[in-house]
Amino acid sequence: MQQVESYVCGDWARPGSGARLIYNAVTGAAMAHAGNDGLDWGGMLDWARDTGGPALRAMTFHQRAAMLKALALHLNANKQALYDISFATGATQSDHLIDVDGGIGTLFVYASKGRREMPDAHILVDGDIEQFGKSGAFLGQHVHTSKQGVAVHVNAFNFPVWGMLEKLAPALLAGVPSIVKPATATCYVTEACVRLMLGAGVLPPGALQLVTGGIGDMLDRLGAQDAVTFTGSADTALRLRSNPNLLANSVHFTAEQDSLNASILGPDAEPDSPEFDLFIKEIAREMTVKAGQKCTAVRRIIAPQTRVEAVIEALSARLARTVVGDPQAEGVRMGALVSNDQKADVLAKAAIIGAEAERVWGDPDTFTPQGPEGGAFVPPMLFHCADPDRAERVHDTEAFGPVSTVMGYRDLAHAADLANRGGGSLVASVMTHDPKVARELVLASAAHHGRLYINDRTGAPESTGHGSPMPHMTHGGPGRAGGGEELGGIRGVKHYMQRTALQGSPDMLTAITGAYVPGATVAEPDTHPFTRRYGDLAIGMSILTRAREITLEDIEHFATFTGDSFYAHMDPDAAARNPFFEGRVAHGYLLLSFAAGLFVEPAEGPVLANTGLENLRFTQPVYPGDSLRVRLTVKQKTPRAKDHGEVRWRAEMLNQRDETVGVYDLLTMVAR
Amino acid sequence: MQQVESYVCGDWARPGSGARLIYNAVTGAAMAHAGNDGLDWGGMLDWARDTGGPALRAMTFHQRAAMLKALALHLNANKQALYDISFATGATQSDHLIDVDGGIGTLFVYASKGRREMPDAHILVDGDIEQFGKSGAFLGQHVHTSKQGVAVHVNAFNFPVWGMLEKLAPALLAGVPSIVKPATATCYVTEACVRLMLGAGVLPPGALQLVTGGIGDMLDRLGAQDAVTFTGSADTALRLRSNPNLLANSVHFTAEQDSLNASILGPDAEPDSPEFDLFIKEIAREMTVKAGQKCTAVRRIIAPQTRVEAVIEALSARLARTVVGDPQAEGVRMGALVSNDQKADVLAKAAIIGAEAERVWGDPDTFTPQGPEGGAFVPPMLFHCADPDRAERVHDTEAFGPVSTVMGYRDLAHAADLANRGGGSLVASVMTHDPKVARELVLASAAHHGRLYINDRTGAPESTGHGSPMPHMTHGGPGRAGGGEELGGIRGVKHYMQRTALQGSPDMLTAITGAYVPGATVAEPDTHPFTRRYGDLAIGMSILTRAREITLEDIEHFATFTGDSFYAHMDPDAAARNPFFEGRVAHGYLLLSFAAGLFVEPAEGPVLANTGLENLRFTQPVYPGDSLRVRLTVKQKTPRAKDHGEVRWRAEMLNQRDETVGVYDLLTMVAR
Repeated sequence: MQQVESYVCGDWARPGSGARLIYNAVTGAAMAHAGNDGLDWGGMLDWARDTGGPALRAMTFHQRAAMLKALALHLNANKQALYDISFATGATQSDHLIDVDGGIGTLFVYASKGRREMPDAHILVDGDIEQFGKSGAFLGQHVHTSKQGVAVHVNAFNFPVWGMLEKLAPALLAGVPSIVKPATATCYVTEACVRLMLGAGVLPPGALQLVTGGIGDMLDRLGAQDAVTFTGSADTALRLRSNPNLLANSVHFTAEQDSLNASILGPDAEPDSPEFDLFIKEIAREMTVKAGQKCTAVRRIIAPQTRVEAVIEALSARLARTVVGDPQAEGVRMGALVSNDQKADVLAKAAIIGAEAERVWGDPDTFTPQGPEGGAFVPPMLFHCADPDRAERVHDTEAFGPVSTVMGYRDLAHAADLANRGGGSLVASVMTHDPKVARELVLASAAHHGRLYINDRTGAPESTGHGSPMPHMTHGGPGRAGGGEELGGIRGVKHYMQRTALQGSPDMLTAITGAYVPGATVAEPDTHPFTRRYGDLAIGMSILTRAREITLEDIEHFATFTGDSFYAHMDPDAAARNPFFEGRVAHGYLLLSFAAGLFVEPAEGPVLANTGLENLRFTQPVYPGDSLRVRLTVKQKTPRAKDHGEVRWRAEMLNQRDETVGVYDLLTMVAR
Repeated sequence: MQQVESYVCGDWARPGSGARLIYNAVTGAAMAHAGNDGLDWGGMLDWARDTGGPALRAMTFHQRAAMLKALALHLNANKQALYDISFATGATQSDHLIDVDGGIGTLFVYASKGRREMPDAHILVDGDIEQFGKSGAFLGQHVHTSKQGVAVHVNAFNFPVWGMLEKLAPALLAGVPSIVKPATATCYVTEACVRLMLGAGVLPPGALQLVTGGIGDMLDRLGAQDAVTFTGSADTALRLRSNPNLLANSVHFTAEQDSLNASILGPDAEPDSPEFDLFIKEIAREMTVKAGQKCTAVRRIIAPQTRVEAVIEALSARLARTVVGDPQAEGVRMGALVSNDQKADVLAKAAIIGAEAERVWGDPDTFTPQGPEGGAFVPPMLFHCADPDRAERVHDTEAFGPVSTVMGYRDLAHAADLANRGGGSLVASVMTHDPKVARELVLASAAHHGRLYINDRTGAPESTGHGSPMPHMTHGGPGRAGGGEELGGIRGVKHYMQRTALQGSPDMLTAITGAYVPGATVAEPDTHPFTRRYGDLAIGMSILTRAREITLEDIEHFATFTGDSFYAHMDPDAAARNPFFEGRVAHGYLLLSFAAGLFVEPAEGPVLANTGLENLRFTQPVYPGDSLRVRLTVKQKTPRAKDHGEVRWRAEMLNQRDETVGVYDLLTMVAR
């Protein structure tokens, strides 16, 4: 029998004498032992904090992103092994794609976002500079730095791979080591994935450890620099978040709880409309994928009262075609629940729902699965609740399986009210082609849901599915859904970092953030910065150009040449009537163009291209007779490819009185 | 005797029979009754949720910002009344400025940021559009919407006005009604301020209620749409956050706890250097302002071992000049603690610290205040801890009064380690003129502190003070500081809103957010959009210009005229060697200028000025012979003044193959 091990302080540890038996979901046969008799909890935390953390923090965000990409590539090349062992969890090959490929995809997205959206640095700047006084001698800048502790990830059984990787990717990118504790029922898949990841040879020692079985008193040993992330039931979440030590030390705790997610059919979606069909398809899929064992699955189906019958009919017809059984058998669309314990729980919960709603599809007593007798099979079960206003349990009972309840609504306010009665959910969806319906539901309901998914005939070709958390979008929700957030691109990384409000002079902020802050000391090199390669440009390196007078002839010539004869440039009377100007003004684009003419070094050199421009503000009008010069300063450098990097320049346009007439960030690519 | 009332469901309620006596801090005489025998907790919550919330949510962010400004103006005109009654709390006139004017200033900053940094809308967009598929038919956009519950603010005694307003300003801007529960010791000042605010006549019914005395079982009645914000001691915070109902419903709870804040003297700051002087001045001020009753006050003074003696000497000399006594008496610099209970607590905590550190200045037994005998006076007390590595209690005992401990460090890592031993703080400060020292300390320490304040001779003229939370910067900190965040500009508003990951087609996202999303349907009006006033421009209104060919002559002419003869435009061989281009390319600024020439309507009209440009990216090279046309679409509208508003246009530059060669947002001012 397989012994599922833990990975502790760099060594694999076999399960202890108190190990639990794990059963094959499809056959019901015992297949593995997992658990521990207590591990060296303090040693694990120390190894993570003292070895893993410093090693990760020594890497830049880009280096950590490259590590994620290497992990993803390695897993991708070896994923067949994960598919092979995942059937025993009851999952089908389509389910494996969600878990295994979905997890690897999440690593890839974080690798890409880390490289594209984060600096090649150790500190992540948050938001704009804040100025407190007139001169700008003392400024504010929020930054995120890596927490100096460890992240303990407590995962659910339904996604042994994705569930680990969606937490690990942002934690590693943040520079925080992790201890992963998978649910025991499917921990053998997680263990196999951890072995693969360690085999990739890119994780520094201490960055990743694995606990199969209980976590002992680990939570009692955590402090303010640590974090706990949890996915699973509301009951377990409550028990964990009530831990006195976590509360006393304000340990960052985020939960992503199974919730009573709803899907709403818009009043515009008549039967046979594309939206009605989408509604039926998405719900049938949500009910049956992973045998309904998804925290985001549709538990409540909210349709106009007049459409309830049609919805039940269409859904039943679709569910009738769902063959349930051995996930490796030909033609099977839905596999087993993870265990017979889970099956008993689902049937008990379905009975609770059954007290308030009538079962209109799927009878677990008469149903015959296409699989072994000992397997944890249940049929998809559809309920209809005729009085959802008076009902209580259909709004708070989650049968974590292929179980969902149809209910009717009178108007949009009622639909939103029903959706919100879940007490907070991970996701609600709306099938409508009417933007007004979507807007009304968002205003009435968004505060109750972590994600709102609106699908229609236009979005459908690229829509990602009601139940699929995308790494780009936050995953979590208020109240019953746990009140937490995961993923959401770089937002997810920040959960493992501390935001700190930095205050200091421009020189201090520049030195700390590695990005030039206006007002900081500049250095004027002997040679034009455009003649320097990427590696030879330092933050704060700067030139001040000569001045060029702007004449009325320039303005007229520019107007004629470009076709931009806007009245403020051409018509003295109209310009004078304009509240912003006292007479004819130079075109903003003329100033930008002349500025480039002033600062560009024309000879072939390492500057390859002007790729963009940001945050341009024209701060004062420039009149004929005024002159222009430019202060151009290296603001930030970001590697983009092997042979070139992005250099962001701060450009400040000044007039003859040294007043700023415009500012912007100029983006260039420079050869390395 | 004054009866301090509560404001409940629109009526003032007198204190009940169980009311507590409040004593004048300066004289020790009983001066008021405050408390309640239970209020209509359910009614208060209902009034807030059912009346206050909907009224606030019906307002846009700009309307709420205008309400904050009106409140601020009204309070400012009537603040003398608040000064007059605040002396009884023991505070000096300088202290009043921090509490009263600081609170009003916070309202002003939020009013201004709400208008400048938020849309005139009900939904706040968060971050960029996320694209999932190739065509962009289905997109993601994070948004924040108002929580649909109530915020319960539990405040500390030390800032009866600021403490209320710094929570109220972001909550009101978020559209969330508030119930304020001030600490009883100074609740008469808060009550007076609430009366003034209601008198301003700008708050909708239900937006603000006040509880003096206990809050009964109100926390047991809160749900996922509500929020609790707390300022005060770690013990009380722990009691509140452990409330089983708050935990079970994942109620958003944020605490800002008194912490063991540190100030570090840089190794570069020799005695008589400007930084040494700043260090002494700031610490003496932090110790004595509000008689040290500030959650941000410096509790631990961390200096190089070789400077410890000089620091003690300089601080003692300064503290010797601090006259303690009746805050209204001539020459008095430091008033009383808030009560004799508080005095007893401070002396008890000082005794704990005294077990690990020697008191080197201030003897409460021999000290004679310049005030009445019954007043809660204590002298500033300075301790020296000779062995801070072995000490425990100096790092975790906060005497909430004019008490601080000096300790020496060996090197920067040791200094950071000592600062971090506070277990998480609201703020740490560093006095250094060496940016390398600042950077090293930030990397070693930022994760432990909510704010890092770096002061030196350069920043000093505009520095805002170690102990002053600015509305622009987050206030809060990890661990011992409570793990929460307040303020921080618009970040603080988001704590009262729910972030939701929206997914849908561009048309759906446009309708929901009120901002044009690329790919959404556009409408081409009969008349040029530049001929339309602000009010006549609708989101999605668009023109597609004619095409203009870009010739080699254009490029050469532009180069000569502007002076921008960068090799990629002028030198065919060099351009071909450039990895981004196949030959000479048009200048980006030429494209921008020609684009304007194509889309501008030259005649005098409602478009007043081009004020800026954002997010420009040149996405493909444009070669001689290519042609250019522009799609210009109304993206977003924001009122900026009575007679004009900002119109943000999405500009997309297309070539003859309809490929996008550049995109940007164009900002204009348009007459209303």
